[in-house]
Amino acid sequence: LCKTGDEGQAAKMKLYDMKQAPNARRVRMFLAEKGIDIVREEIDLVAAANLTPAYLAINPRGLVPTLRFDDGSILDESIAICRYFELEQPEPNLMGRESLEQAQIESWQRRMEFDGLLAIGLAFRNSVPHFSSRPTPGAVPGAPQIPDLVPRGRVLTQHFLNQLDQRLKTSAYVAGERFTIADITAFICIGFAKWIGVQPEPGQSALQRWHDHIKQRPSAKA
Amino acid sequence: LCKTGDEGQAAKMKLYDMKQAPNARRVRMFLAEKGIDIVREEIDLVAAANLTPAYLAINPRGLVPTLRFDDGSILDESIAICRYFELEQPEPNLMGRESLEQAQIESWQRRMEFDGLLAIGLAFRNSVPHFSSRPTPGAVPGAPQIPDLVPRGRVLTQHFLNQLDQRLKTSAYVAGERFTIADITAFICIGFAKWIGVQPEPGQSALQRWHDHIKQRPSAKA
Repeated sequence: LCKTGDEGQAAKMKLYDMKQAPNARRVRMFLAEKGIDIVREEIDLVAAANLTPAYLAINPRGLVPTLRFDDGSILDESIAICRYFELEQPEPNLMGRESLEQAQIESWQRRMEFDGLLAIGLAFRNSVPHFSSRPTPGAVPGAPQIPDLVPRGRVLTQHFLNQLDQRLKTSAYVAGERFTIADITAFICIGFAKWIGVQPEPGQSALQRWHDHIKQRPSAKA
Repeated sequence: LCKTGDEGQAAKMKLYDMKQAPNARRVRMFLAEKGIDIVREEIDLVAAANLTPAYLAINPRGLVPTLRFDDGSILDESIAICRYFELEQPEPNLMGRESLEQAQIESWQRRMEFDGLLAIGLAFRNSVPHFSSRPTPGAVPGAPQIPDLVPRGRVLTQHFLNQLDQRLKTSAYVAGERFTIADITAFICIGFAKWIGVQPEPGQSALQRWHDHIKQRPSAKA
């Protein structure tokens, strides 16, 4: 399936992408782990290029990343895009095999997403001037930023990193003994948290060790 | 697997549950669709029973629903719990079969969750007196409610219902031509939205038709 050099499948889809956007980044990291190369087009979320009529004709939700197939149909939601590629190309496995393992990895992935990514996003979207009138991602009603969400999001992010450090004291990777999609979401969180001025603390040695280790993977640069 | 009368598997797990909680409700509805009966224990989130030492010893995140296995290991995150049962007992299928169908259903499920459930939760948790010091679910740092989130959550919920009505004008069910987990999340959203005073409007006839139809399912009472 659409590996570099295999032009059959790759030509049939395109990924609307943005270099710095955390959700786009986790799809790219997932694809890099799978060795899947795909045509991509950059959509500048900061400049609201996702809310232009041209982009809304592709995805009316205005979300990035979006996977577009040759027939014009689309797939959005980063984890759903990952699921598609996981099922199409099962190895290397990133979402689990047996029922319980799949469910546990999904639980850890969602924990990284709800406790980490969403908390960071609250603080980010409600503070950055570029998003002053659009604190909620995508083509939804505009609204003023709510400054009180910034300290709340930062406290939740600090709590999240502390919990993650605790977990990584007894587990090599987020969901267990091997690298999975849960590590991808967690790793992307650390990068995203820079934008709200929160980073792992020196005392969080398990988190630091894990982060240094994941950073060595070629996919970390995707 | 742990159907009514099959005491083998059922005895090996317990579901920590709460009658009115939307995430607990969608797991119960999912299990009812599968015909799976399971031992349940009620945890009163309003009375903060999920934050007692006894419950935190079961699930340190303090989240409900939580599935607990006989060996003390747990699985939380409602969709991960559903995934476990979907894989253990594939029929009736609620999460898709081929790669693309699975991914599309996941995308719709997540859309209902992020655009619907989260928006309603923001308005609910930041207005109800019982949650005055805990506007974020689970065992996370307490914080004051942010009243500005109430109008924001309500506007996003109204937008969500409008988009859902548009979708249901051309699709019998949320994710396509059959009932799936995406309908479960959407249906639970409508019930939850009552608590913030938002409901489908009389003009949203496709949404009304779909809601009346889903309400007839025996699982809707689970």
